[in-house]
Amino acid sequence: MPPPDRHLVRRGTAAQRTLVKLPNGTTFGGDAVVLCAGPCSVESGEQIETTAAAVAAAGASVLRGGAFKPRTSPYAFQGLGRNGLSLLRSAADRHRMGVVTEVLDPRDVEMVAGFADMLQIGTRNMQNFALLREAAMAGKPILLKRGFAATVDEWLMAAEYILIAGNPNVVLCERGVRSFDSTTRNLLDVSVVPLLHEMTHLPVMVDPSHGTGVARLVEPMSLAAVAAGADAVMVEVHPDPAHAASDGPQSLTPEQFASLSRKLAEVASAIGRRVPELGIAV
Amino acid sequence: MPPPDRHLVRRGTAAQRTLVKLPNGTTFGGDAVVLCAGPCSVESGEQIETTAAAVAAAGASVLRGGAFKPRTSPYAFQGLGRNGLSLLRSAADRHRMGVVTEVLDPRDVEMVAGFADMLQIGTRNMQNFALLREAAMAGKPILLKRGFAATVDEWLMAAEYILIAGNPNVVLCERGVRSFDSTTRNLLDVSVVPLLHEMTHLPVMVDPSHGTGVARLVEPMSLAAVAAGADAVMVEVHPDPAHAASDGPQSLTPEQFASLSRKLAEVASAIGRRVPELGIAV
Amino acid sequence: MPPPDRHLVRRGTAAQRTLVKLPNGTTFGGDAVVLCAGPCSVESGEQIETTAAAVAAAGASVLRGGAFKPRTSPYAFQGLGRNGLSLLRSAADRHRMGVVTEVLDPRDVEMVAGFADMLQIGTRNMQNFALLREAAMAGKPILLKRGFAATVDEWLMAAEYILIAGNPNVVLCERGVRSFDSTTRNLLDVSVVPLLHEMTHLPVMVDPSHGTGVARLVEPMSLAAVAAGADAVMVEVHPDPAHAASDGPQSLTPEQFASLSRKLAEVASAIGRRVPELGIAV
Amino acid sequence: MPPPDRHLVRRGTAAQRTLVKLPNGTTFGGDAVVLCAGPCSVESGEQIETTAAAVAAAGASVLRGGAFKPRTSPYAFQGLGRNGLSLLRSAADRHRMGVVTEVLDPRDVEMVAGFADMLQIGTRNMQNFALLREAAMAGKPILLKRGFAATVDEWLMAAEYILIAGNPNVVLCERGVRSFDSTTRNLLDVSVVPLLHEMTHLPVMVDPSHGTGVARLVEPMSLAAVAAGADAVMVEVHPDPAHAASDGPQSLTPEQFASLSRKLAEVASAIGRRVPELGIAV
Repeated sequence: MPPPDRHLVRRGTAAQRTLVKLPNGTTFGGDAVVLCAGPCSVESGEQIETTAAAVAAAGASVLRGGAFKPRTSPYAFQGLGRNGLSLLRSAADRHRMGVVTEVLDPRDVEMVAGFADMLQIGTRNMQNFALLREAAMAGKPILLKRGFAATVDEWLMAAEYILIAGNPNVVLCERGVRSFDSTTRNLLDVSVVPLLHEMTHLPVMVDPSHGTGVARLVEPMSLAAVAAGADAVMVEVHPDPAHAASDGPQSLTPEQFASLSRKLAEVASAIGRRVPELGIAV
Repeated sequence: MPPPDRHLVRRGTAAQRTLVKLPNGTTFGGDAVVLCAGPCSVESGEQIETTAAAVAAAGASVLRGGAFKPRTSPYAFQGLGRNGLSLLRSAADRHRMGVVTEVLDPRDVEMVAGFADMLQIGTRNMQNFALLREAAMAGKPILLKRGFAATVDEWLMAAEYILIAGNPNVVLCERGVRSFDSTTRNLLDVSVVPLLHEMTHLPVMVDPSHGTGVARLVEPMSLAAVAAGADAVMVEVHPDPAHAASDGPQSLTPEQFASLSRKLAEVASAIGRRVPELGIAV
Repeated sequence: MPPPDRHLVRRGTAAQRTLVKLPNGTTFGGDAVVLCAGPCSVESGEQIETTAAAVAAAGASVLRGGAFKPRTSPYAFQGLGRNGLSLLRSAADRHRMGVVTEVLDPRDVEMVAGFADMLQIGTRNMQNFALLREAAMAGKPILLKRGFAATVDEWLMAAEYILIAGNPNVVLCERGVRSFDSTTRNLLDVSVVPLLHEMTHLPVMVDPSHGTGVARLVEPMSLAAVAAGADAVMVEVHPDPAHAASDGPQSLTPEQFASLSRKLAEVASAIGRRVPELGIAV
Repeated sequence: MPPPDRHLVRRGTAAQRTLVKLPNGTTFGGDAVVLCAGPCSVESGEQIETTAAAVAAAGASVLRGGAFKPRTSPYAFQGLGRNGLSLLRSAADRHRMGVVTEVLDPRDVEMVAGFADMLQIGTRNMQNFALLREAAMAGKPILLKRGFAATVDEWLMAAEYILIAGNPNVVLCERGVRSFDSTTRNLLDVSVVPLLHEMTHLPVMVDPSHGTGVARLVEPMSLAAVAAGADAVMVEVHPDPAHAASDGPQSLTPEQFASLSRKLAEVASAIGRRVPELGIAV
């Protein structure tokens, strides 16, 4: 086993920071802070189109949305599947957005990669090594969420599985870890942002929606993430959070997202970065 | 979504406790405390045969051994694969033992089920729902390990995925959870044994090897598990722990396992249960 | 700072295991497993007398009961204070029991030591070093509960504060630690029993009442603690748990305690230890 | 027991946000973000004077420094005691700074209050109720650090102990909580900043030095705290971190603190707040 400083994921193995690029021009790891937004689940053509139009206008360049949902209970909504992917792709294309969506099963990787620009490995699957290997080989960038009780070292080793399979395009996404206090859904670990920037050349995203589980905390924690140096923020947005099929309590309305985007631009500017111009997603 | 008390996994939905049986006669959930033992990884024919002979003689009726190993690092030993399964099956058959082994990939389920009597879902895959569904349909009993940071409710919901797929033969295995104290590898939660016996009709196993990560703690924690009512204990045994390919520090020698088995019989008797007679595995 | 192996608390600094003795003859750390029992709070003369009579008859040799209660909310019952201590002492004397009770304030140590045979340092005060020093100098044995999020090393260092103040009579009490799962009040860490027996010469007690917070789990977890080698068990007993001023949901009735005591004797015997004869506390 | 919404600590019981003021004009809870800085321990007159001069010039209006140190090991440096307090007071006075310092023992409260403008209750003593009551009655504002494994509700109830003793001047300080990942010393919970602003009228401070334990993470996490709405930041600064008596690895040099202060001003401005002018502490 090579020593940690020889691992592909460690800083020093790349001459410079890795830039992960999507076909619509979105670049993770550069000067601009990337905004990813969209609903937890794709529910209908109208829902995803309304959301895409709103978040693109507010500066988001990547559309998120789940079609295969990993749910704690087998009785909970499991997603629209392939049809959801098709709706997601169409909405993104109408607004020149990239698409990121989760894949759960190694047998679905090829199909999901046919619709998505970036494959998300969810928190429950961070150490699903069969899935990591298969996803790595699909030729698309990977969004690797932190396991909800994974140490930083375990997370980096999961990324290493992708890198040694020949895919250098990995973005790490902090989404909160489990703690002893149930006041919030998870405990968002903002400190991993500067820590990862020391330890690895890969870009770092923060998801304050899952990280807190509380819509009112999403704006301040998004600002905190950017102030700490995050390369991207992922936010759940739904046109009608009260009636969302999943994760309503942590979803912003389109208006709240637009307000957040303006404030993010101020904080990004304060630390010498920028967010994309409003209305110009790419 | 049905209320919790209507879930299949909850006590009351079965007229009596579920008994999970293997072809060699091993029964989980009855009067006898089942002993599962074997190495972390199958390493060679000689290693698995030596171990099987010793643990069978000491009262174990189920042989464990990993052929597909989920390892944090991609550089660590990943197991012998299909060849390991074949060696495991042969050794078990020579000693009239059942076989339990882990499956990692839904595409491997059918193949692994061709060798094993019981399919293990490991701690990292407790919420790998694609794997749970595929394993459930293979027609073999499932050993469902607790996720290392899973709540009891999440664990029971993972079992529910298996039960609603039509497979009623699930054994739940506590193997330690993650805590703030790194003195031991995990924190073995013995209290889930009586708690689960209140909440579900499924048998409960305890794995003190992974639960502590320290060979010297395996005996006292095995005794504690049986005193608390565990239906089965799983112990890692290796003929030469110092040279094991994985998990050496938590593995017992065959002699230590034989000593443990005798003490387990005493404690089981003290609470009105029994362990199988030495040398008569089934 | 001396290296860990030169600390007073570490095994090897005492030629043999420390025996902690109370005036009524109770010895912690010897062959016999000591039973401590009593209500969370002393509520009245009748309540404590009824409880003392019952638990003494069932084999308990130490009476517990709180007179100064550390409560999360300032509006919760804070204990009877000095009057509670007096009632506790009288009840214990009538049944030849020792008394252990908690002290919260260094200014109260002398007064509490006038009534108690053993001073308890509670979980919230494990690192209240001013209190540790003052209690150490009162000339009575100390029951040092583990902080609810303390590592084993921090716990041993807290004991070291007492030992270097010249008081060698410390019993360590595991009472559950905080975890991510709120199914039980705390997560009882039974594995510290054998771990501490390796690391220190001090006796180890387990408190399954606070450790689980659920009365139905107290019996199986007491059995587990003794099977793992605990030198003592502390159990909350109340004549009418449903109307207890504090901790009712985790308190046993006197009848439940008597049943537990009989089963503890069986398990203790299975591992070569004993509990005191019923009705003969000392 | 009154319902939570009737507790003094809850928002709604004050017509407006509480402003906590120190004699030098420092106000916690207003528009300005307060900077508290200084060494972990007061070590000498020269050390504290050098630090005070530097941090005052960089915008800090409150000088921190420990004279009574709560240390895990009894062999670690325990602080200079009363002499340290005197040195701390003199240095602060020379630079028109306020003084905050920790008190450990209720018997020391009056003496410490003779030197300090604000009494700190440390993380290990958050539920040391005897100390909370005594400190509350000294007539000085209280800095109440979060227990390292305390829930938000427990923390607010600890503040309630102070408020019902008649002292309304409490500042809450997040300093990191214990987690399963030892990569950082603690896990700094930035999300409590906006959460507390919803739940209580009390000002909120963040301590990224203890919160991370790593000097390089102090700047980004200070920026994150202010972006999330923190009313104050506390930073450990030492003229020679490599030779500090305690907490060197997490201490900034005076130059690093000056750089941090400038960046904090930018981020504060981006969210509509300000930090005091450089060189004008009050």
